[in-house]
Amino acid sequence: MLANEMIDKEFIYVSKDDKVVDVSIKMENSRRFAIPVVDEELKLIGWITSLNVTKGLRENKKLVSEIMYQKEEVYYIHESDPASLAVIETSNHKLVSVPVLDENEVVIGVIRSFDIVKTLSSLYEVKVSKLYEAMEDELRGVEWEELMEASAILHRKTTGKRTNPSDYEKLINNSTFGEAIWATGGLEKFFAGLITVGELVIARKMGRNKK
Amino acid sequence: MLANEMIDKEFIYVSKDDKVVDVSIKMENSRRFAIPVVDEELKLIGWITSLNVTKGLRENKKLVSEIMYQKEEVYYIHESDPASLAVIETSNHKLVSVPVLDENEVVIGVIRSFDIVKTLSSLYEVKVSKLYEAMEDELRGVEWEELMEASAILHRKTTGKRTNPSDYEKLINNSTFGEAIWATGGLEKFFAGLITVGELVIARKMGRNKK
Repeated sequence: MLANEMIDKEFIYVSKDDKVVDVSIKMENSRRFAIPVVDEELKLIGWITSLNVTKGLRENKKLVSEIMYQKEEVYYIHESDPASLAVIETSNHKLVSVPVLDENEVVIGVIRSFDIVKTLSSLYEVKVSKLYEAMEDELRGVEWEELMEASAILHRKTTGKRTNPSDYEKLINNSTFGEAIWATGGLEKFFAGLITVGELVIARKMGRNKK
Repeated sequence: MLANEMIDKEFIYVSKDDKVVDVSIKMENSRRFAIPVVDEELKLIGWITSLNVTKGLRENKKLVSEIMYQKEEVYYIHESDPASLAVIETSNHKLVSVPVLDENEVVIGVIRSFDIVKTLSSLYEVKVSKLYEAMEDELRGVEWEELMEASAILHRKTTGKRTNPSDYEKLINNSTFGEAIWATGGLEKFFAGLITVGELVIARKMGRNKK
């Protein structure tokens, strides 16, 4: 996962000498809740959220410099940082967005929490059948039908529900990785289940090869 | 994953007759960028974001009813909906938060995008070694050392790097599931690698049992 993938390319920024009123219009029109304040070289010098703006408008402040957080108070990351840092900062500090700087402290973009949600959730949306396809590819000599059969047996063992191989195939075609780890009680348990299926089909394959 | 786990328990709400100025102070003090507007029974009737408030303050609007989105325009979920719906709504509509209603349309909480980030990212933080432990538990008769050895061999094959079993053990103790799926090129590939390790150790175990 690269920070780059998640960066808001149409991010907006303001100068410390911009008027609060103008900035509020700019933020409303672009639907941005938090934006960087930069100097003439586009280096980060501060940060404002729409809540700084509401306070500024109420208290009749004129300029961005009067309402902004100073750079020392801003959570930001560098483009060379792993993307996971943006994720950690957002979640630990309850941020709506985090600015991304290059090595010269120039703002190159902003990562927003809902863009992180989009990226993280894409993993959860992987269909379980895709993992079975990877398993079939990897275990040469094992057929799809054998995988379904072994899984149906284990599914019946763990859930007590009668399941035939074609029911099981429907199940994995309709369920996502996210649903599956939830249903099995966590990543480790989901994974352990797949390993058991693997063991069963590998044992059969080896038994066949012996003959 | 349950919607319930992600709900902001200290959510705030306002009435349509509240003053915009008072609401702006309330939102700033509680650091909430978007909040539900409810009737006297706490049923959802609208929604305001801090950007509605900046506009309202600028245009000298007095009451919440003058600046709020009407219920028909609000994205919300019900508590009986799967949590994934909150995730999808947030990411598709670029929302900072989504209200959660009970069957009577009463607001019982709000799910914020950074709380979703926290929940989703916890999966990514699972250490790879935990998956190996699940594999060791599952494959009775296979030792940890064998798993490390088989993995080191495959790691060398795929990356070209000399890796001994204890290097590999360090590697999985220090890396998370998120890093591993990124490094291997996706969930399916990561998973296929583990299946290959499984196949190798299972084959050896069966060989042993034969003797």
